[in-house]
Amino acid sequence: MSHSPDRYPLAELGDVPDDIRARIVEVQEKSGFVPNVFLMLARRPEEFRAFFAYHDALMLREGNLTKAEKEMIVVATSGANQCLYCVVAHGAILRIYEKNPLIADQLATNWRKAPLTLRQRAMISFAMKVALRSSEIEEADFAELHGQGFTDEDAWDIAAIAAFFALSNRIANVSGMMPNPEFYPLGRVPRQKSS
Amino acid sequence: MSHSPDRYPLAELGDVPDDIRARIVEVQEKSGFVPNVFLMLARRPEEFRAFFAYHDALMLREGNLTKAEKEMIVVATSGANQCLYCVVAHGAILRIYEKNPLIADQLATNWRKAPLTLRQRAMISFAMKVALRSSEIEEADFAELHGQGFTDEDAWDIAAIAAFFALSNRIANVSGMMPNPEFYPLGRVPRQKSS
Amino acid sequence: MSHSPDRYPLAELGDVPDDIRARIVEVQEKSGFVPNVFLMLARRPEEFRAFFAYHDALMLREGNLTKAEKEMIVVATSGANQCLYCVVAHGAILRIYEKNPLIADQLATNWRKAPLTLRQRAMISFAMKVALRSSEIEEADFAELHGQGFTDEDAWDIAAIAAFFALSNRIANVSGMMPNPEFYPLGRVPRQKSS
Amino acid sequence: MSHSPDRYPLAELGDVPDDIRARIVEVQEKSGFVPNVFLMLARRPEEFRAFFAYHDALMLREGNLTKAEKEMIVVATSGANQCLYCVVAHGAILRIYEKNPLIADQLATNWRKAPLTLRQRAMISFAMKVALRSSEIEEADFAELHGQGFTDEDAWDIAAIAAFFALSNRIANVSGMMPNPEFYPLGRVPRQKSS
Amino acid sequence: MSHSPDRYPLAELGDVPDDIRARIVEVQEKSGFVPNVFLMLARRPEEFRAFFAYHDALMLREGNLTKAEKEMIVVATSGANQCLYCVVAHGAILRIYEKNPLIADQLATNWRKAPLTLRQRAMISFAMKVALRSSEIEEADFAELHGQGFTDEDAWDIAAIAAFFALSNRIANVSGMMPNPEFYPLGRVPRQKSS
Amino acid sequence: MSHSPDRYPLAELGDVPDDIRARIVEVQEKSGFVPNVFLMLARRPEEFRAFFAYHDALMLREGNLTKAEKEMIVVATSGANQCLYCVVAHGAILRIYEKNPLIADQLATNWRKAPLTLRQRAMISFAMKVALRSSEIEEADFAELHGQGFTDEDAWDIAAIAAFFALSNRIANVSGMMPNPEFYPLGRVPRQKSS
Repeated sequence: MSHSPDRYPLAELGDVPDDIRARIVEVQEKSGFVPNVFLMLARRPEEFRAFFAYHDALMLREGNLTKAEKEMIVVATSGANQCLYCVVAHGAILRIYEKNPLIADQLATNWRKAPLTLRQRAMISFAMKVALRSSEIEEADFAELHGQGFTDEDAWDIAAIAAFFALSNRIANVSGMMPNPEFYPLGRVPRQKSS
Repeated sequence: MSHSPDRYPLAELGDVPDDIRARIVEVQEKSGFVPNVFLMLARRPEEFRAFFAYHDALMLREGNLTKAEKEMIVVATSGANQCLYCVVAHGAILRIYEKNPLIADQLATNWRKAPLTLRQRAMISFAMKVALRSSEIEEADFAELHGQGFTDEDAWDIAAIAAFFALSNRIANVSGMMPNPEFYPLGRVPRQKSS
Repeated sequence: MSHSPDRYPLAELGDVPDDIRARIVEVQEKSGFVPNVFLMLARRPEEFRAFFAYHDALMLREGNLTKAEKEMIVVATSGANQCLYCVVAHGAILRIYEKNPLIADQLATNWRKAPLTLRQRAMISFAMKVALRSSEIEEADFAELHGQGFTDEDAWDIAAIAAFFALSNRIANVSGMMPNPEFYPLGRVPRQKSS
Repeated sequence: MSHSPDRYPLAELGDVPDDIRARIVEVQEKSGFVPNVFLMLARRPEEFRAFFAYHDALMLREGNLTKAEKEMIVVATSGANQCLYCVVAHGAILRIYEKNPLIADQLATNWRKAPLTLRQRAMISFAMKVALRSSEIEEADFAELHGQGFTDEDAWDIAAIAAFFALSNRIANVSGMMPNPEFYPLGRVPRQKSS
Repeated sequence: MSHSPDRYPLAELGDVPDDIRARIVEVQEKSGFVPNVFLMLARRPEEFRAFFAYHDALMLREGNLTKAEKEMIVVATSGANQCLYCVVAHGAILRIYEKNPLIADQLATNWRKAPLTLRQRAMISFAMKVALRSSEIEEADFAELHGQGFTDEDAWDIAAIAAFFALSNRIANVSGMMPNPEFYPLGRVPRQKSS
Repeated sequence: MSHSPDRYPLAELGDVPDDIRARIVEVQEKSGFVPNVFLMLARRPEEFRAFFAYHDALMLREGNLTKAEKEMIVVATSGANQCLYCVVAHGAILRIYEKNPLIADQLATNWRKAPLTLRQRAMISFAMKVALRSSEIEEADFAELHGQGFTDEDAWDIAAIAAFFALSNRIANVSGMMPNPEFYPLGRVPRQKSS
């Protein structure tokens, strides 16, 4: 076993507050397993609640970014931050949303090689600068987004998702959170059309 | 005026939801002014609530780090991320908590020059690695903390604060949030003892 | 479509010299498809022959590194060089050799998170330094390898593989070589034991 | 106490050569205290004389840069070099010259956030490249300056100031020179207009 | 003596396979000495053969790059990779090909200072990006080359030479291969015209 | 022609102040030519005088560093700063002082490959950190020097020379100062012993 597994043991479902258990059970019923991020953060209930409130505020927000595009931002910036948990878990989600078994590995390894639209390339390019060199963001970066039809509120969405996963990647990297084995193969075979 | 001020205008206090206004008024009464981060994030109420819930979960949590030490982490990592808002605002808070008019500029410019205890140096060194190279955190980094008496839960506190301000710094850098002028001189003259 | 696909079109099997076609047919029969690297390099027969002669000299050489360990070096250094082709193609090979569906994504994203032996960690750490900062290799780096039982000839093997994929990654990155879709799912489900 | 204070003790005013003491006394009478850089460099009289001759040749030279603009270069590049002494001491001077209590913290933390004119932005951008990547200076960098009305002699001034503080920052960082506490609050309260 | 000389002793000419000895003798007769790279790689005959086959495929190939221009790529990228062997040995070759005693030191130290044509500057700029940041190569980089009259096959030549010396520099750096003293002064005095 | 030669034309010897001309004539008589740094800096007499006063204070100072060792620091740090003028000019001086035709190219390209004593390796390692990351200098760096017999005053000498050439390299890089062709071959053939 790689990273000292006893430092931050995953919470036991029986030990967590009711609201947190309810959320976890809901995810479990939908996914068939409990992603480790839920049991890792449940060690600290207040941080768990704030984390997922923030996550939902950004990822479920209605706007001009599709749910798949938001996951593209997560996968590309998590690749740059070398966060195994987020690359693997959100890679699976992205493959499913996008119904594309290749896109996650492309974005995580080198986003320039992914078959993105020009609009999506501008989005990822901005997100990567937020992730890696946010102090250098300047007017020209917003102009690039505007040139692809993004509004300033879209720019906030892109930046906030990259910023939230700057947090998330660091928590995962330090806590030694490992992706559930179930994530790795998810979405790798295109869903069969029902006849 | 430097950064395009109309992109993300600060919220008007009259326009924000009641719970958010209550929080802002409380801060205003305590500080004498409303820090811009409150009015900037109030543009998006859900993100505001999650942000401050997370902030409070970390910064108000009881544990082995003092409130001043937590602000040391904020100031040093925000300096590394070149986040003007957080360096100036949290620099003021740190000066007040620590009753030391010099410490914030020292930590923001070059933490190695600040008169820290060995324990605090280990704390800041770990936080800086989380801020800048979290994927390289390894057992030896925890061992350094343990050698100065920190527990694994303390390590989580340090890492989570560095991670939360990785988010916060990016939001501030991209949104063009400027520190209120009131923050700059705060705590620079040691409080007079009352006679 | 992402990268201009017409710049360096893949060779047609009918157009390549006999010795090259023989090698390609052999691979095709074994794998069930022709990896794009063969058809890309076949555009230039002399470079093809030298490339695969070098590849075979290193990867098929008898020594103290297992075939799986050699592929670990390829996957980890190719991840650092953000080479999509090599991460995906050699990731598949590594999963098969190691009969481990998780190891390739771990090594490509952040090798420190992979469940390596201490010996393998020393091997990958050395390989990463050769890939990224070879001018700084010094006696202490060899001493680390010796401490895990590697000989100087093993060190040469590790360095030469990292160096060969420094070349290979650059060719793939510049030529726009894309991994065959067949590689992505390979080895992700452990082979069923036949009854 | 942070940095070993006995390695390079400050000179005693009684021990230094007359010409150096005269200069120091002059500064003391003007400022009300002796900045530590004078007593640190006075340990080596020849280096002291050359240092301040160079400083004066650049900082007192008549030309198209104002004295405040020259200090902007010092503060921004010293921030990039993480030189505590120069950030704090020259930050104070800049606040006074510019009658602006905020500008120094802005430039030292992230010059892109300071309310500079376009001309000043070009000046600082050039200075930062000289400080951090001088080998990459090329024709286009001079063209940017010319576009804002700077001459080639102005470019020399900017570059030479950035270069001189490349020296100065390194001496301060290595010698452990600490800013006098008097510098920190200087110029933070705008001077009262006399009635 | 600097680098442990016994780790990878140079091969003895009497011990190497006939084809390798024949190649070495040919070089010796032409140059007057045996460059160490031949005796270092001859330790491993298969790697020797592949290395020089690849080298010759690229460096002897007919195309739009002159032999001197190919050596410019080698010297500039080897300087960036801090490879002493390649800088000194190929610097000598470049001086001779170009009949210019200054060009090698210029390219190895800072290629921007060398008196290159615009065409050669585009070539070296592309090669340096392949050497140092190949994952970021994009359409605009090819457009720059096209703007100077280079074809896509020329771009491949440039990239492949930079890639091959990415390999070669790493082997030399790790093996401790030292340039023969004969290389240092070669080509430093312009050949006398025979009368 | 490479760098715009008309931006900062070299001074004419007839136009410079007498004290500067005297110094230049002295150098010319000793060396047989006038190094371009003298004519470039003579454009600004005050800066010329301060520059050479500082240079002499450091390079002619009596102490525990030999003149050759001081030039080793110059050549290694100038290589890291990619300063063509200083690498070539001081490389020549180093070859002559050290009576070693190889040492300058070794130090400028990769100091780890030069045949240095352990004492000299500690010296260069410290100088390189001052040149490239002076803000990170800490007690352990001084301890390394002490371990090789250097005093704190020696450490100042090493740091001050690295700092002075941080200035010098930037001036040369920006001004486009080119090394005189006479420097390149100097000291490359060991002086013949007179019989």
